[in-house]
Amino acid sequence: MSVLHFNAFVMNTVSHIQHGQWRNPAARQDEFEDVQFWIDIVKTLERGRFDGVFFADVSGLYGPRDGDYEVYAQQGLQIPSNDPSVLLSALAVNTEHLGLAFTSSIVQEHPFNFARKISTLDHISKGRIAWNIVTGMQENGARNFGTDLAEHDARYDWADEYADVVYKLWEGSWDDTAVLADRERGVYADVRRIHKINHVGPRYSVEGPHLPSPSPQRTPVLYQAGGSARGRRFAAEHAEAVFIIAPSPEVAAEHISDTRRLAVEAGRKPEDIKFFQGLSFVTGETEEAARAAEAELEKYVSVEGYIAHGTIGVRADGTVYPPETKLKDIESNGSQGIIEWLAKSVPGEEPRLSDLATLLSRRGRVVGTPDQIADELERWQAAGVDGINVVNWHLPGSYDDFVDHIIPVLQQRGLAQREYTEGTLRKKLFGSDKLPDRHPAARFRGAFTPVTAAVVGG
Amino acid sequence: MSVLHFNAFVMNTVSHIQHGQWRNPAARQDEFEDVQFWIDIVKTLERGRFDGVFFADVSGLYGPRDGDYEVYAQQGLQIPSNDPSVLLSALAVNTEHLGLAFTSSIVQEHPFNFARKISTLDHISKGRIAWNIVTGMQENGARNFGTDLAEHDARYDWADEYADVVYKLWEGSWDDTAVLADRERGVYADVRRIHKINHVGPRYSVEGPHLPSPSPQRTPVLYQAGGSARGRRFAAEHAEAVFIIAPSPEVAAEHISDTRRLAVEAGRKPEDIKFFQGLSFVTGETEEAARAAEAELEKYVSVEGYIAHGTIGVRADGTVYPPETKLKDIESNGSQGIIEWLAKSVPGEEPRLSDLATLLSRRGRVVGTPDQIADELERWQAAGVDGINVVNWHLPGSYDDFVDHIIPVLQQRGLAQREYTEGTLRKKLFGSDKLPDRHPAARFRGAFTPVTAAVVGG
Repeated sequence: MSVLHFNAFVMNTVSHIQHGQWRNPAARQDEFEDVQFWIDIVKTLERGRFDGVFFADVSGLYGPRDGDYEVYAQQGLQIPSNDPSVLLSALAVNTEHLGLAFTSSIVQEHPFNFARKISTLDHISKGRIAWNIVTGMQENGARNFGTDLAEHDARYDWADEYADVVYKLWEGSWDDTAVLADRERGVYADVRRIHKINHVGPRYSVEGPHLPSPSPQRTPVLYQAGGSARGRRFAAEHAEAVFIIAPSPEVAAEHISDTRRLAVEAGRKPEDIKFFQGLSFVTGETEEAARAAEAELEKYVSVEGYIAHGTIGVRADGTVYPPETKLKDIESNGSQGIIEWLAKSVPGEEPRLSDLATLLSRRGRVVGTPDQIADELERWQAAGVDGINVVNWHLPGSYDDFVDHIIPVLQQRGLAQREYTEGTLRKKLFGSDKLPDRHPAARFRGAFTPVTAAVVGG
Repeated sequence: MSVLHFNAFVMNTVSHIQHGQWRNPAARQDEFEDVQFWIDIVKTLERGRFDGVFFADVSGLYGPRDGDYEVYAQQGLQIPSNDPSVLLSALAVNTEHLGLAFTSSIVQEHPFNFARKISTLDHISKGRIAWNIVTGMQENGARNFGTDLAEHDARYDWADEYADVVYKLWEGSWDDTAVLADRERGVYADVRRIHKINHVGPRYSVEGPHLPSPSPQRTPVLYQAGGSARGRRFAAEHAEAVFIIAPSPEVAAEHISDTRRLAVEAGRKPEDIKFFQGLSFVTGETEEAARAAEAELEKYVSVEGYIAHGTIGVRADGTVYPPETKLKDIESNGSQGIIEWLAKSVPGEEPRLSDLATLLSRRGRVVGTPDQIADELERWQAAGVDGINVVNWHLPGSYDDFVDHIIPVLQQRGLAQREYTEGTLRKKLFGSDKLPDRHPAARFRGAFTPVTAAVVGG
């Protein structure tokens, strides 16, 4: 048995996934604008030997275009939200090993600027940065950037070009030997080893060269979480860590083997991708104590928050149907699959929105003693899961609990690492600082090197 | 007599202004990729009660389009360079009072994303962020973002719209009272006080609302450094701190009174803008010791570096004319003013490129004992200068010297503050956290508030 990897899943906002919990007296996430709040959390995570902290993000409001957004404001549901990327250097200098991952959408930043930001952060953190590639799915998010939301598959074509541009900058623009820093000769860098990329594509023209020198990982560790067929193909081609929220280990196993098969078809190896299952945890010294803690959390569940986040119960004008509304009475496209899922989950009754909210709030929830939780994690590991994306109920309490009570038991069972290995995040996860040659980014290594001067000179 | 303000002028690169000095045995700026290098510097600056650290930046290479860039790589002349903005949170958590200013060009980032970044940093730093607005002037910088360099005045029109968008987001999108964080009622924020901006202009369409809640300063302190007529008008309308490099206190006085006059024409007050003169310092216990220290610095002056940065000695193919070239033999547009300046400065000879480099390396250089330097600063203050932008020779030595040897004398004379005042950067500089009502950003306060519900409801 090998250890599982652990990521903490958070967002630089009030209410990320478990809506209503900010009202819990134990919750401090309404302090998210204070950097010290985050520093305390990452120190806890590092004490617990977590592999990384992973910031979700958005580019705009949830809900329909031109819709009312009262429910999102009221719930603090991903608004207000702050830029996670500029928070990371403060966290980097307060940790030594923890991976620092954040989400950035192709809509929100030009790839030339984005690539530079990543390289700078990778230098600052000595190689601990990961990027969760997202294509954006919010109408308002697109309109904040002067565009309408592109059709789903077209967004992935856009993402393919975006990835090409940043790969060219990270992997191809500077040779490993470009920086000499030779004080005697007065040569800081050798221009023959710094290349323009001259990218011209459907959406971007980028001349280069990349402004930063090569950072420890060059390309950051690549995260992806798309569940659609096209998203899964993108993940199979590009991702090194895939985040799933499977309803059971069996479904996870299916997703994992399918994506690994696609990765092999794309010329990669099955072990080039690690799969993280999203789960949340409620624990106690006894099962009864854990159930009591769960009942305490249930008090703060906001049915309206889960409905609004799920979008299925949101009207075209942005308002939310009442919780008692039967799902069959909702005019909403694409809800058939969810209705079927609910029908299976709420047998003998016509499912209502409140049932959906309850199910969403319970999705991936594991309740029990640390030993019971360890048993459950073994089941996920047996299904092929490489790591757990630990969703929090409230901050910082959920990670305090996990680190103080659950991690020690996992360490005793050999399910969690006791010490960090040295080196970059990719080195810790895959044994190497750089992407393997079979990754699509690697084809740009050396791709912009001109014919050598010796040959040109004759 | 009042105190002068002090900014440290730096860049996240090897060779910013004083080229060749990275080869100086005392220089450590080739460690710029290491965050600890910067943390040490900002702690020194805060010990010396500096008002701020100010990061310059670029979006691409210097030199002509499609030109060779060997000299820039060789000199480390602003390449490699890293993103300053993502460095700031690490510096914020290692200081308490120091202002944190950085340059960001309108070409490099969409204003929606940029405004969010600034608000996040302003939250993190508790109101210590300043933004140096630049329009970008590099052909390569424009082509890294898929565009050709816009004509000079057109860039300022673009900057006007860019400023409007970010002002709308910072000042108009959220009312002061929008965040309630009311756990009892379960209301985090009041949607009636969070407004879409629906900006539509020649270049940008931005729906909003702004994602972050109001930060301590809302709009960051606004820096500007443009010297052209159009740039000066932009500064007069928008800037709170203007950075000049005048050849003498008399010229500074002229520039300052002209810009203040333009500011008054734009509806602002003369004291709404503080002027910082860029100077560098070489000191010693005696004048002889200072001259010896200067001679040591002179050893590392790179003539080629100053020529390449000045651009006047750069051929259309990007290569640099030899230092002994006479200026009259250079085919370069727009050099007439510089030739006249040199003719005045190098009397009786035909000026050569090496003369230009020498003059550039000596521009704004003040050499002497701390008392002599204090005398010189009094002359600048008498001309109306509010502060000094302290250019470094090498890092961290130039600021160690300034803080350890010059600041104490300035403090004794009442020319430098002994303690910080509390509060945000704007509060420290102007006595108020927010921009005054007469600033153009202020016109967006309340501009997006709909007719109140009471009125609508009848």
